[in-house]
Amino acid sequence: MARPRLSDGTRTRLLEAGAAAFLENGYHGTGIKQILDEVQVPKGSFYNYFASKEDLGVAVIRYYRDCTARSMAEAMENAPAPLVGLRTFFERQMAAFEEARFAGGCLLANLAGELDGSDACRDALAVAFRAWRDDVRDALAAAQRDGTVRADIDATELADVLVESWEGAVIRMKIDRSLEPLDRCLRHQLDGYFRP
Amino acid sequence: MARPRLSDGTRTRLLEAGAAAFLENGYHGTGIKQILDEVQVPKGSFYNYFASKEDLGVAVIRYYRDCTARSMAEAMENAPAPLVGLRTFFERQMAAFEEARFAGGCLLANLAGELDGSDACRDALAVAFRAWRDDVRDALAAAQRDGTVRADIDATELADVLVESWEGAVIRMKIDRSLEPLDRCLRHQLDGYFRP
Repeated sequence: MARPRLSDGTRTRLLEAGAAAFLENGYHGTGIKQILDEVQVPKGSFYNYFASKEDLGVAVIRYYRDCTARSMAEAMENAPAPLVGLRTFFERQMAAFEEARFAGGCLLANLAGELDGSDACRDALAVAFRAWRDDVRDALAAAQRDGTVRADIDATELADVLVESWEGAVIRMKIDRSLEPLDRCLRHQLDGYFRP
Repeated sequence: MARPRLSDGTRTRLLEAGAAAFLENGYHGTGIKQILDEVQVPKGSFYNYFASKEDLGVAVIRYYRDCTARSMAEAMENAPAPLVGLRTFFERQMAAFEEARFAGGCLLANLAGELDGSDACRDALAVAFRAWRDDVRDALAAAQRDGTVRADIDATELADVLVESWEGAVIRMKIDRSLEPLDRCLRHQLDGYFRP
């Protein structure tokens, strides 16, 4: 049976609403109906867009990955130097977190916390995390070339250290409702351990 | 009305089962009934032990905090030097994670990911996180005194850096099903940035 023709706009709005709902209430705390109501899509048509809630989860993770990649690219594009661009990316994240009153945080970390049971989601999380790590690695490698980041440790390894420290800092930010853990991460990693 | 006399044993078993279930399926993914079935307690008597699911959540967070404190104390007690004790604590955590096939992870981080909506749980998480940070700070301060950790950064600040990096590494461990992020955290923080 042919599937009805789908509006890309509706699918994107479902992904946006899904990302927002998962950020606010977690995957298990979110019902499909709630997302459909938000986007004003009738219940029956959900399965025109996604095979299951898990399928929506995977698509939301990919959508979030693409948003992060775009945000990184924007920050790097207009920066006078790679380390400045990387810092701009993190500072924009901090501004967005503060605007959200420290709720939400990072969707990848939150979903990692509750999605042990879904191999499909875990695979999507691993891909998304690695894609972000690779963007950070490229920025750090460029900074190594211009002498603003230590070059005696591999850029991939430094990128892993940075993104993992950042994710833990985001968790602490959510608990303490404060940007201090994020500031601390940048201060001790980027401006401390990573210095040439 | 007087509450029936409660068995501490049953309450503890409910906390153990709650911690295990929250680790496996998250807070929102866990039903009270499932915990009661696990411990073979009749549904009606849940409210003899806890006022609500949220109240159980708070109690589970405290219980988890106490377990972590005990584990830290044990590791430190028998260690020839504070830095060795701290390392032992983290290595035992890694062994336990590996035994659990990288599922679960850290209950504090997982619940932080999905419990924006509960002030009571968030407060309990903040207290638990700070108690653990304080234990790590005490170990690092002792290591500073015996010259095995750099003394030019405050021990509390170093402890924050370490526990936050560790939490992010645990998230990545869950996603990648690998101890490498945890190894990396100890390698670059404890054996790298923290060296005198």
